[in-house]
Amino acid sequence: MPPSKTLAQQLAAKQREISVAEFFERNRQILGFDNPLRALLTTVKEGVDNSLDACEEAQQLPDILVEVTKEGVDRLRVAVEDNGPGILKREIPNVFGRLLYGSRFHANRQSRGQQGIGISAAVLYAGLTTARPAKVTSKVEEEEAAHVVELLIDTQKNLPKVVSEDLLLWDRPHGTRIELLLKAKYQRGRQSPFDYLKGTAIVNPHARFTLVEPDGTRITYERASTEVPPVPKEVAPHPYGLELGELAYRLKAATRPLLLECLQKDLAGVSPRAAREVLSKAGLSSTTRAADLHGEDLEKLLTALHSVALVAPSAESLSAIGPMLIKRGLRNVLGDVRPEFYAPPVSRPPKVRGGFPFLVEVGLVYGGALPADQPVQLLRFANRVPLLFQQGACAITTAVQNLDWRRYGLDQKGGQGMPGGPCLILVHVASTKIPFTSEAKEAVAEDPELDKELTLALQAAARHLRTHISRRTRREFASEKFAIILKILPKLAEKTSALVHKPVPDLTPVITRIMDVVSVDTTVASEAGGIRARTEVTNYTPRARVLEVFVEMPCELVPKAKYAQTPEGTDAELGRAWWTLEKLPPSGKASIEVSFPKGTEVEASDLSWYIAGVDEAHLLGAEPLPGDWDVRLPRAVIEAAEAGLEPLPGTEEAEVDYDAAEGSARVEDDES
Amino acid sequence: MPPSKTLAQQLAAKQREISVAEFFERNRQILGFDNPLRALLTTVKEGVDNSLDACEEAQQLPDILVEVTKEGVDRLRVAVEDNGPGILKREIPNVFGRLLYGSRFHANRQSRGQQGIGISAAVLYAGLTTARPAKVTSKVEEEEAAHVVELLIDTQKNLPKVVSEDLLLWDRPHGTRIELLLKAKYQRGRQSPFDYLKGTAIVNPHARFTLVEPDGTRITYERASTEVPPVPKEVAPHPYGLELGELAYRLKAATRPLLLECLQKDLAGVSPRAAREVLSKAGLSSTTRAADLHGEDLEKLLTALHSVALVAPSAESLSAIGPMLIKRGLRNVLGDVRPEFYAPPVSRPPKVRGGFPFLVEVGLVYGGALPADQPVQLLRFANRVPLLFQQGACAITTAVQNLDWRRYGLDQKGGQGMPGGPCLILVHVASTKIPFTSEAKEAVAEDPELDKELTLALQAAARHLRTHISRRTRREFASEKFAIILKILPKLAEKTSALVHKPVPDLTPVITRIMDVVSVDTTVASEAGGIRARTEVTNYTPRARVLEVFVEMPCELVPKAKYAQTPEGTDAELGRAWWTLEKLPPSGKASIEVSFPKGTEVEASDLSWYIAGVDEAHLLGAEPLPGDWDVRLPRAVIEAAEAGLEPLPGTEEAEVDYDAAEGSARVEDDES
Repeated sequence: MPPSKTLAQQLAAKQREISVAEFFERNRQILGFDNPLRALLTTVKEGVDNSLDACEEAQQLPDILVEVTKEGVDRLRVAVEDNGPGILKREIPNVFGRLLYGSRFHANRQSRGQQGIGISAAVLYAGLTTARPAKVTSKVEEEEAAHVVELLIDTQKNLPKVVSEDLLLWDRPHGTRIELLLKAKYQRGRQSPFDYLKGTAIVNPHARFTLVEPDGTRITYERASTEVPPVPKEVAPHPYGLELGELAYRLKAATRPLLLECLQKDLAGVSPRAAREVLSKAGLSSTTRAADLHGEDLEKLLTALHSVALVAPSAESLSAIGPMLIKRGLRNVLGDVRPEFYAPPVSRPPKVRGGFPFLVEVGLVYGGALPADQPVQLLRFANRVPLLFQQGACAITTAVQNLDWRRYGLDQKGGQGMPGGPCLILVHVASTKIPFTSEAKEAVAEDPELDKELTLALQAAARHLRTHISRRTRREFASEKFAIILKILPKLAEKTSALVHKPVPDLTPVITRIMDVVSVDTTVASEAGGIRARTEVTNYTPRARVLEVFVEMPCELVPKAKYAQTPEGTDAELGRAWWTLEKLPPSGKASIEVSFPKGTEVEASDLSWYIAGVDEAHLLGAEPLPGDWDVRLPRAVIEAAEAGLEPLPGTEEAEVDYDAAEGSARVEDDES
Repeated sequence: MPPSKTLAQQLAAKQREISVAEFFERNRQILGFDNPLRALLTTVKEGVDNSLDACEEAQQLPDILVEVTKEGVDRLRVAVEDNGPGILKREIPNVFGRLLYGSRFHANRQSRGQQGIGISAAVLYAGLTTARPAKVTSKVEEEEAAHVVELLIDTQKNLPKVVSEDLLLWDRPHGTRIELLLKAKYQRGRQSPFDYLKGTAIVNPHARFTLVEPDGTRITYERASTEVPPVPKEVAPHPYGLELGELAYRLKAATRPLLLECLQKDLAGVSPRAAREVLSKAGLSSTTRAADLHGEDLEKLLTALHSVALVAPSAESLSAIGPMLIKRGLRNVLGDVRPEFYAPPVSRPPKVRGGFPFLVEVGLVYGGALPADQPVQLLRFANRVPLLFQQGACAITTAVQNLDWRRYGLDQKGGQGMPGGPCLILVHVASTKIPFTSEAKEAVAEDPELDKELTLALQAAARHLRTHISRRTRREFASEKFAIILKILPKLAEKTSALVHKPVPDLTPVITRIMDVVSVDTTVASEAGGIRARTEVTNYTPRARVLEVFVEMPCELVPKAKYAQTPEGTDAELGRAWWTLEKLPPSGKASIEVSFPKGTEVEASDLSWYIAGVDEAHLLGAEPLPGDWDVRLPRAVIEAAEAGLEPLPGTEEAEVDYDAAEGSARVEDDES
């Protein structure tokens, strides 16, 4: 450098632009290519996400093939093939050979790929590690042949470099296949393509996946549903959480000249009335033009938008998994674990953060063969994509760790950190824009709005868990009590009777009085003729009871159900049926049976049994009727009916005490 | 959309380029702007990092001012000002108003900002949240006036949009000031600018920082050293860990035509001999031209490069903190905690990952007022920048958590996870390219090479901790033993003597024989005349000893030290002095004193005392001489000297047993 240049000039001479491809080539760990194992997973993931998105847009049942073959010591050839709509030849180079290029970034609706980085990042990594081009084969329906394009990325320019082009007669009517040679490592187990596809299948039951492993093993995840989820609708951003800069941009790009109209059309949730209220609060006239708004007026407008009541964000742009599929998916992944308890899945209503709607869903499973002495298993999903890495950096994990699980019956040191116990938690966050912590899309960033929803959803699931655990504990305690009573009381009675030279009295009333519960046993058995679900109710309370039994099942099962006892009523829409057990005497038993024809997909956890007519403290083995259900018989009717029944002799006064004592032990609710 | 368009065409029509600024505006959490607290810290951090880098390049002692003032409910005005070389007017818009633009990305040497994103990200965020331009004032030495430029970022183009330009007569000869108005929140405590500057001061003792808080409080972190660290040298990438794609790029951009020369000049660590060996292994002739290399030849070349012995990477491109400054820095941050133990800081030699050299440094502190019932405090640094967020996602944290700290004396459940105890660990990773997990540069990504170095450095520090803890335990055990002996033995002797009607015997030899240690007490006291460090040696072993006492101190203290007892020798370069205590009889005491004039910066932990002439098992309160030091008196001389001394009557045979018994209790080393 000539000495005449000053230091500032020397420094200025070194300044230059950095291409985004160059940047990511140097920082490939940010894209999820830190090491050979993760590189493979990221490549498969980006390919499959693209395929699923493409099929969804075409409303096509996805049929996706992932092939991994070994080449040399440390290299794998990875191919991902789909039956999507295909890509026009002229778009292939840009879609696969350019970072920050895509169709979904500007669309305000839920999709897997949103950043326009994913698959080109894999092409970049392949080029970096093996210097081999990506081979893309794609056919669109309207053309005869498929196009085969081989390409690399020119990292200094972030532009595709096409190496070769060809035509191919492909047996698919339409679809896309990408093939890459990269430095990578295949290994089954946690964080493997095997695991990833399993997780993807849970939340995408309409897709079929085939995985061919390097040793030739072929695994197919069959579709469990033939219904394509609807394409989430594109919606305008909602004003809640919108920043000033974003608002200014939206108004500049608005489709109508008048601000009053813009507010209604280019933003979501603003009714004509609300739009006028906003303008008046901001001190703006109804003839203000959107493009004219600057500085302070803009700020006043935003303040007004945030202070006026608006319509809640719509869920149309989101694609929730839904309680039924969460349960199905969990059952699918849990296989032989046979958990003792599936909490009713929680699906929160959509909220908004930074203008983007989002929603949270939680599934929770407990017991069975799940390991009791290990941390709870956490399955994280974002927009129906499993998140396998960076668990420690994820807001979902933080929300789980910050909940005091001791209150819900799990082990947790100091009420903080990952709880322990035979429990698995599934959390799904769906949003038109997931705030990922990095371009690798493996962890969701912390956000107060999101955290609130995560916490509420987790709490709701945890409350079900607590009820289950405390019920189980009570039941265990009751059976223990029962066993002791049955062992000691007769001996005691025998000895005392012998002492006073009287005959041994009948102990049944005493035993029943001490137990004081209505016990419910439910079973589901596969039999020759089909599946039989049965619930047996035993009245171990000291007086006769009028009880109502309710069953709830997925609506699709209702037409198939056959009842041994004609129900008093059914509700096909809500999937419910109910019966009244009249005059069940102390120690009396009654049962209800529902059967389904052979081949019906039904499991114990599909049927929920509820009992009305006895309070929670005196009910074992079933749930009391949820608070938001209609009790078929008003309390007065039950009381009148029960009034005519003889109580067990010598139990009248004791019952009050038991009620009071047990009542105080009832669990408290944590939400006000 | 006209219905004549096919689905593939419709999808193609939606494809477009995404500007990098637009991408980050939507994904600002990736840049560290998730919430108002973090947004403030990231802004301050990016400003200060830039200032430090600029001053370092100009070899200027940095003087950095950070001003935070409140404006409105949720906005802060943040200004960062430095005395760096300033920026040429024509470069100001690009440096501050364009993402992925900078001078340090392509330079292969250690710096804080490497990505060309940092400060423009803050400008982007300010624009997004307040729609206000950034105000940059900069003056270069050769110009009379400073330039004031106000600018925004055009996110759709990722280009600066200059709003206004002006000239200013500034009192600084040169420097830069940036002012931003953004949605942010000020709060002291963890992850605050206050904390960040404190952390930065630890590892940048040559810089002065002034922080003006929103309430007007002015905090100055004075510089502790006036030595500017040298600018790390730019080096060529090292072949270890270099990928094929990177190698191809390097050869294409090579400065010489011949491959043989390229290997030596455009790569680091390849000697002429190694270059020839590489060519022969790769089956290439010495006349091969670098630009001609393709496909298989390229692969063979890389394989050969990875198989030939090369010169280790140089540390010239790295700027380690160094043991002395780590200790100083820790002492500075620990303030009143007064830990009982500072482990000698560990500075590992540089290694290479992916062609980039890196090194790991670890400091460890134990005891004092550090909380004993909480997790260990971890201070993470990367290229002299404190990392305050994303601790859970950082490879440094993982390395700490994966070490079995139970072996080193700390609590740790199951030998995994964050250990607990009164301990603080500082870890610094320096590299020409830190693999951050995201553009927010808050966590280091996992990497096998890095993990290995982290583990080795942590183990080395942990071994010092273990030695300290086991020594302390032994000492505590010994004092307990001493107390019991002094209480019981005299009583026993008294009663027995009374029983046999004999006078009570002198118990000293028995007590000494049971204790069998050389005990060392060191103190540092501030007195009127200065600081006096004193070590007192008591021989509680049953025979007279010839002992050597060594003291080690930072070299800069050597000229100031005054010795009460003339040392037998000193080594100014190593900061050592030593004495021989001849013929210290059983129960005999001797002391050594070193004093420093008033105002000298010296603490107990600056002086390390070592004793030779007694093995570790019989030494309490001081360290035995480290293995790599020269023992001044050969063992034979000591033995000869000791042979002439009278042993304590009646102790000859017992000593052998004690030696054997204590020797077996010595701690084992975990490195082979």
